[in-house]
Amino acid sequence: MYYYNSWDADFKQPFGAIQVGQIMKVNLKTDKENVTIKFIIRRDFGARSEFDMQKLGGGIFSASVKFDVGQGLYYYYFEISEPTDWGIKKFYYGCSGLGGEGVLYMKENDVRPYQATIFSMRDVAPPWYREAVFYQIFPDRFHNGNPDGKINHPKPNSFIYATKEDTPLYVKNENGDVVRWDFFGGNIRGIIEKIPYLKELGITALYLNPIFLATSNHRYDTNDYLQIDSMLGTEEDFQALVDILHTENMRIVLDGVFSHVGKDSRYFNLSGQYGSDVGAAKNPDSRYIDWFKFTEYPMNYKSWWGIKDLPEVDKDNPSFRDFIYGDTHSVLAKWNQFGIDGWRLDVADELPDSFIRGIRKNLSRYPETILIGEVWEDASNKISYGQRRNYILGESLQAVMNYPFRDLIIAYLTMTKTAQDLAYQMLVLSENYPHDIFYNNFNNLGTHDTERILTMVGDEANDLAVGMLFSLPGVPCIYYGDEAGLTGRKDPKNRKYFPWNNIHEPTYGLYRQWIAKRRSEKTLTQGKFTTFFQGNTLGILRYTDYEAFIYVINPTDEAVKLTFEDIHFLQKLSFVERLRECLDELILPAKTGQDFKIIKIKNMV
Amino acid sequence: MYYYNSWDADFKQPFGAIQVGQIMKVNLKTDKENVTIKFIIRRDFGARSEFDMQKLGGGIFSASVKFDVGQGLYYYYFEISEPTDWGIKKFYYGCSGLGGEGVLYMKENDVRPYQATIFSMRDVAPPWYREAVFYQIFPDRFHNGNPDGKINHPKPNSFIYATKEDTPLYVKNENGDVVRWDFFGGNIRGIIEKIPYLKELGITALYLNPIFLATSNHRYDTNDYLQIDSMLGTEEDFQALVDILHTENMRIVLDGVFSHVGKDSRYFNLSGQYGSDVGAAKNPDSRYIDWFKFTEYPMNYKSWWGIKDLPEVDKDNPSFRDFIYGDTHSVLAKWNQFGIDGWRLDVADELPDSFIRGIRKNLSRYPETILIGEVWEDASNKISYGQRRNYILGESLQAVMNYPFRDLIIAYLTMTKTAQDLAYQMLVLSENYPHDIFYNNFNNLGTHDTERILTMVGDEANDLAVGMLFSLPGVPCIYYGDEAGLTGRKDPKNRKYFPWNNIHEPTYGLYRQWIAKRRSEKTLTQGKFTTFFQGNTLGILRYTDYEAFIYVINPTDEAVKLTFEDIHFLQKLSFVERLRECLDELILPAKTGQDFKIIKIKNMV
Repeated sequence: MYYYNSWDADFKQPFGAIQVGQIMKVNLKTDKENVTIKFIIRRDFGARSEFDMQKLGGGIFSASVKFDVGQGLYYYYFEISEPTDWGIKKFYYGCSGLGGEGVLYMKENDVRPYQATIFSMRDVAPPWYREAVFYQIFPDRFHNGNPDGKINHPKPNSFIYATKEDTPLYVKNENGDVVRWDFFGGNIRGIIEKIPYLKELGITALYLNPIFLATSNHRYDTNDYLQIDSMLGTEEDFQALVDILHTENMRIVLDGVFSHVGKDSRYFNLSGQYGSDVGAAKNPDSRYIDWFKFTEYPMNYKSWWGIKDLPEVDKDNPSFRDFIYGDTHSVLAKWNQFGIDGWRLDVADELPDSFIRGIRKNLSRYPETILIGEVWEDASNKISYGQRRNYILGESLQAVMNYPFRDLIIAYLTMTKTAQDLAYQMLVLSENYPHDIFYNNFNNLGTHDTERILTMVGDEANDLAVGMLFSLPGVPCIYYGDEAGLTGRKDPKNRKYFPWNNIHEPTYGLYRQWIAKRRSEKTLTQGKFTTFFQGNTLGILRYTDYEAFIYVINPTDEAVKLTFEDIHFLQKLSFVERLRECLDELILPAKTGQDFKIIKIKNMV
Repeated sequence: MYYYNSWDADFKQPFGAIQVGQIMKVNLKTDKENVTIKFIIRRDFGARSEFDMQKLGGGIFSASVKFDVGQGLYYYYFEISEPTDWGIKKFYYGCSGLGGEGVLYMKENDVRPYQATIFSMRDVAPPWYREAVFYQIFPDRFHNGNPDGKINHPKPNSFIYATKEDTPLYVKNENGDVVRWDFFGGNIRGIIEKIPYLKELGITALYLNPIFLATSNHRYDTNDYLQIDSMLGTEEDFQALVDILHTENMRIVLDGVFSHVGKDSRYFNLSGQYGSDVGAAKNPDSRYIDWFKFTEYPMNYKSWWGIKDLPEVDKDNPSFRDFIYGDTHSVLAKWNQFGIDGWRLDVADELPDSFIRGIRKNLSRYPETILIGEVWEDASNKISYGQRRNYILGESLQAVMNYPFRDLIIAYLTMTKTAQDLAYQMLVLSENYPHDIFYNNFNNLGTHDTERILTMVGDEANDLAVGMLFSLPGVPCIYYGDEAGLTGRKDPKNRKYFPWNNIHEPTYGLYRQWIAKRRSEKTLTQGKFTTFFQGNTLGILRYTDYEAFIYVINPTDEAVKLTFEDIHFLQKLSFVERLRECLDELILPAKTGQDFKIIKIKNMV
């Protein structure tokens, strides 16, 4: 009786997020006469506005609203007034929970509204970024480039693994605190030495986990933002790395860890390794004293997630802001001058929006750089610390780490979510995110913070996971060693040393092939995205005005045969009939994916 | 009214332990008339014998007993019968607990008897041994002799310390089990390289902690008795070490760990690293199956002190005995042929007497070798596993590790025992041990199993501890690094790497000086021993027929002045008046020791 579909251009235009000042047009269709319909918009944590919908022909009620009251999240639904013998009866039409087609609600309080993401401006990433195939390197675990394998400046009271094949292990005390850090001794020269390997694989950009002076092997406990950790090498080594990468037409993104510092940092200096003058915990008159919050000086202080190794910094402190992203002499200023191509912001949730905007502003002077944020959830509607976060609405992050896609891929390939779940949930993300942000998603199948993909999905499904990584929208990033067949559950098992003498050739070949495909098929980097499914078979569709790329996946243990008429397309496609030639009666053996390319298509309706 | 003194030649001859077949003569003195006295001997866990004592002139009752009924421990005391108006009254004269003068007891049950140790034969150590100054090396922690500092064959899944200054740490899981072993990487080439250092210090013999293939850094968990651990080097390295030492007129003693093996040894093979055929835990038909006691095959088995890493071996098993000390192809046969100078038997308490005798017999073919046992207590009367141990009564151990002296030295220097305690307790040990065993005591101030002496007694008293080590009877053994000023409480802190770049010169000088004195003064190696004290000042006296060496110690925080008349000598000395010249009115400042040499003395009465 009532119908609306946020994914269908007949009912909503434009698709997805809307820029401030743009008009959103919605149509609701009904076969009822005499009803009146209002279009209701609630601003996030804000006021309710209502707009009368205009009755057009063919049972269509229409409204066009110009969103010119600022960026942010808005929620919308429809209020239907139906006259009855007993007076006016009100219904509501809202979201079922996943976008697309909606449902009727009897009470306004129960309505799940549709989300409308209103962004302030398009944040177009530099062109190299969308084309990139990233490779994430955990520097201690990749390669030691010293000719004799010696380890640069081993840290006092730390452990070195006896062999490169050793299984990583945390050395903890009875309380579960790490009491001694463990190193394999990878370094920057090692990365340089392996650039030919990375090129051969097809990699075009590196994302490095932190490289500044720190105590731990992961170096998220920065001791000095202005120094390369001496175990990793020197500034000369780093400059050489950047320069050689650029010569090879490759890019490099660093990890910016600005939410907290190391307890033994120059800034905090708890154990006094920087002497008695420097650092807030050693000197109450330290220039850094206002960066931290002591509840009881000096032993009790605010720390990241209560981890005492990581004193939290007050990111609203002007001197800290100036130190991180001031015009000159700042952390960003120093490393940008090395020619790096961007930053990944660690725990972006913990950084105030204004802090991230400050970083973005600093970087805007380097139009070739990218700013990526670590966010684990749907970044469009994330609330952290009671605040709705605005980091993908413009002048802020340009991309976020796409853990939601990773979660979906794993859930689908391990059969805990269906093809329909996947199709819907991926489309929801594409709807919630501003277009540029969505297609700039920094996609992964795993990182230093997650289990290895091979361990999560197993040998057979690993092929499908890789296929999905490279066919889904967003920029793929390979976690070092995934292509070599590394396995491992969570940290530290997911941080083994790269198996240079034992690369699993079939896995390597799989990655190399998909990377090549990704780089040769423009559709995979520039194409729009939609999904379809039949049974538990999922289709990923990427398309431009000229051609389409289709990847269909059967994660089950049995062969399936598709029937074109039974395929559910989530969005209308002008060239849908062209898909018949490859999908109708397609037989997919158990645990396989298959990809097709169709050329000379017409645009979507 | 009654007097006997086991330390006084007027009352007992000979002093101390007695060889089978020798006559022991005892005199008891009384001013009572009409009494009769019996000399009572109880054999350890055996029969009571009584001998009438003969009344001589001057109130002396005397008995002479020939001990010809076998080696072992005997206990003796005196039964006194005194006629009274109410019939015969019986008293008993026995030991006060510490030898020397005794006390009267009213009831026979209450008597603490004197101990008489009866040994079967003198076990004369090779001449080099008594003259030696030993140095104990924990091989992983001494020196890496590879030119580039590389570590030979690091063990998979082990940790290497990042710097040589790191503090040792066990890597344990929540249950307290070591889950990964930690290595510094010292090796045999390193020992060879430091022979000049050791010679310069004055060392004449080395005792090495285990060097055979093992999993741990201490290598008490032998995996293969017939292989040098490849981290330490090769058989060629070891042969070179032995040969160079001999060229330098130095000796070497190995650690024999025969009570248990490593769980991953070739013999047990719990984790299967030797394949599926070899080892009792992997193959019930293994040739080694009878060496072990499984309570539930293969996961539950008898192990040393319940430590599952160390399956216990059945030392009564003939094939194990043959493997360890058989004439040919045995462990001893193999390593003796390298020309080593002896063995230290780990946990001698856990080895049956007959097993130790088997080893001794094997070694008797090499008259230049010494057999030392690890015993922590007074080895003359130790009971282990309900059995009185006979390991110092002949044809068995030639020396034992003298932990009792170490305990006394530390207790005295930390003022928890008095000079009198020390004087008495040291003399008791000299009385209980067969003469050769006592003077062959393998003395130490600390080992890999104890706290470092410097940590136990502190800077000032350390000088006194070293003075005592070198003036007391027995063969001194320096635990590597004590002379360099290493500190540390128990394992693993007592196993730091040798501080080659940070040798504490005053401590080194102290050791070097005492070693030189020890080696130049024959009295210190060959002289007899007795003690004296005044207040809390202890005197150690070593003497031959020709000269005497005196070391007097004031461990207190105040200066003391001795008065010759007030000094308590525990034994009569013919040349006692000669001591007046150095001891009378001697002023000893706080925490100092002073040594004297007196020549041209006469023999003891």
